[in-house]
Amino acid sequence: MNGKYRPLWLNKNGDLEVLDQRYLPHEELTRVLKTGDDATEAISDMTVRGAGVIGNVAAFGVYLLAREFENNKDKIIQESAKIRASRPTAVNLMWAVDRMVEVIKNSNDILKDAKAEAIKICDEDVKRSETIGKIGCDIIEDIMRKKNLKNFNILTHCNAGWLAIIDSGTALAPIYEAKKRGIDIHVWVDETRPRNQGANLTSWELLDAGVNHTIIADNTGGHLMQHEMVDMVITGADRVTRCGDAANKIGTYLKALSAKDNNIPFYIALPLSTFDFESCDGVKEIEIEMRSEDEVHIMRGIDSNGKPQDIRITPKDSKAINYGFDVTPARLITGLITEAGLIEADENEIKKLK
Amino acid sequence: MNGKYRPLWLNKNGDLEVLDQRYLPHEELTRVLKTGDDATEAISDMTVRGAGVIGNVAAFGVYLLAREFENNKDKIIQESAKIRASRPTAVNLMWAVDRMVEVIKNSNDILKDAKAEAIKICDEDVKRSETIGKIGCDIIEDIMRKKNLKNFNILTHCNAGWLAIIDSGTALAPIYEAKKRGIDIHVWVDETRPRNQGANLTSWELLDAGVNHTIIADNTGGHLMQHEMVDMVITGADRVTRCGDAANKIGTYLKALSAKDNNIPFYIALPLSTFDFESCDGVKEIEIEMRSEDEVHIMRGIDSNGKPQDIRITPKDSKAINYGFDVTPARLITGLITEAGLIEADENEIKKLK
Repeated sequence: MNGKYRPLWLNKNGDLEVLDQRYLPHEELTRVLKTGDDATEAISDMTVRGAGVIGNVAAFGVYLLAREFENNKDKIIQESAKIRASRPTAVNLMWAVDRMVEVIKNSNDILKDAKAEAIKICDEDVKRSETIGKIGCDIIEDIMRKKNLKNFNILTHCNAGWLAIIDSGTALAPIYEAKKRGIDIHVWVDETRPRNQGANLTSWELLDAGVNHTIIADNTGGHLMQHEMVDMVITGADRVTRCGDAANKIGTYLKALSAKDNNIPFYIALPLSTFDFESCDGVKEIEIEMRSEDEVHIMRGIDSNGKPQDIRITPKDSKAINYGFDVTPARLITGLITEAGLIEADENEIKKLK
Repeated sequence: MNGKYRPLWLNKNGDLEVLDQRYLPHEELTRVLKTGDDATEAISDMTVRGAGVIGNVAAFGVYLLAREFENNKDKIIQESAKIRASRPTAVNLMWAVDRMVEVIKNSNDILKDAKAEAIKICDEDVKRSETIGKIGCDIIEDIMRKKNLKNFNILTHCNAGWLAIIDSGTALAPIYEAKKRGIDIHVWVDETRPRNQGANLTSWELLDAGVNHTIIADNTGGHLMQHEMVDMVITGADRVTRCGDAANKIGTYLKALSAKDNNIPFYIALPLSTFDFESCDGVKEIEIEMRSEDEVHIMRGIDSNGKPQDIRITPKDSKAINYGFDVTPARLITGLITEAGLIEADENEIKKLK
């Protein structure tokens, strides 16, 4: 999607190089991952994030393990469990590692096969992302026709763009496609506290792509929806159960409630690899990651000299708590936009995908 | 409530001195207001904020005008319109200025009467706040009895403590009363972007009062409510219509939706002076203040050397939009806690208060 980067690539030394998403939009830095442990760390410290890219880095992480322990299948498989456990909520991570392990188990040329499989996972994501964009944009055009709209306002939470799933994301893919089709589109970008993936990453992507957008505090979406300033809400997901409940960035549930209350369509865009057919009741069954409270206390930005700075925004003696995700029940979801088409958030429909 | 300050007082020179709430919790600074224009500025730049304290500073602002233009009633009344227009949403502001103007119109000793009336408005707030605290705490005890709770988790948004209404606030008054009664209470403090009144002011107040609390991103409340970690939501209000719709800090509506969805009681605590009997449909009729987009872009905190710093957290070319309030419809409100008792958010009940 972007002119300069993918979020990850094999560099000229054969190492995995990634865009360090912790420093965007203020600094464009990359980080080189040489070992499986490097991949685990990059996922858990959120150098990379977003369900798809986590899966991609995990897959290449298993390839890096294959490079470290070339002739020791057992060791590679054993070590890959660390990558698999680097974050708990996004199911693409487990899916990607399991797929890599399966290939390695049956391989006679581990290094070659692992590399090929990791590249294949990425290539598949590119196609998924493209298809999701087209299907999502068809929905946008359909709403515009029915409501006779000249322009379209879409609200998104967190970042589900090409930084999250190559090459154009899930939730942002229909937006990029709309831009391509010449639709007059404007995006309300939820800041997405505490890590500000909206204010930092989605805004950066949209600026780069020349998509008209406005950053809002996470508190603002309800007011906009009450005043007919939002035509659609779309987000990605980190895990969707077979019953259609969707774990996504904390705060998504609040936007879904508000969309429902104001009769605004609320869509989740996801690749099929994000489905978790094992679970049904997402609120009860999906493990929600708790991250460091410092992500609430400390904010990153640039000072008046343009120098990156971390500041503490809370009193030093106050505690904070930091849940990474919440679960939006299926009853609040208008539809699931996947590479296999638009699907109802309903067990009978989702089961057919298995 | 607090050991050190009220949010405003007449200092030894007879000027109005206020705690400058823009710098809390990192710096405890005060600001001296000598003229009506100083009061207008302090309200509009949010040196002081919170419906009650805005009303108090407005009342003393009219007194400062009386000091400036002692024998010119017309000029005082004319200038007081500037104070009245310093912010659009909190109705206490208009109420307090109108009351001061009425006193001045009928006064033969303007300076003395204006001072006495401003002090009286403050003294009344102290009593209102105390009564609201007792009534609210009775509700807490009632819920604890019915649900057989040993401890109580309450979620609040923005700041409606003694920094907002002297001497113990509206939404925080029942919490301070609960602490006094020995109830094991814990407060979830919504950060309240973009100005962080929760993370900056409510946390600072609760630390000072020794009340157990945890700061959360505004996105987090829905998840906590889904997991039975919240027993009650309580907020203040800036304006409540005669039909029970409540304008309060942006984001309040999202928490009310989530409370409803999870069968959690959602209360608004307010003095009677916050009712606006002229309006009914809050979403349509209440003017919502739009503030500078810089409040979204720029964050204040302290750097690693303890020095206060402003940093920009968004890309420099991205726009933002900043609505100060949203409206929670009456249907989502369990009850209104006022100094006249607990009242249903219903036109027939509210009309009786007029």
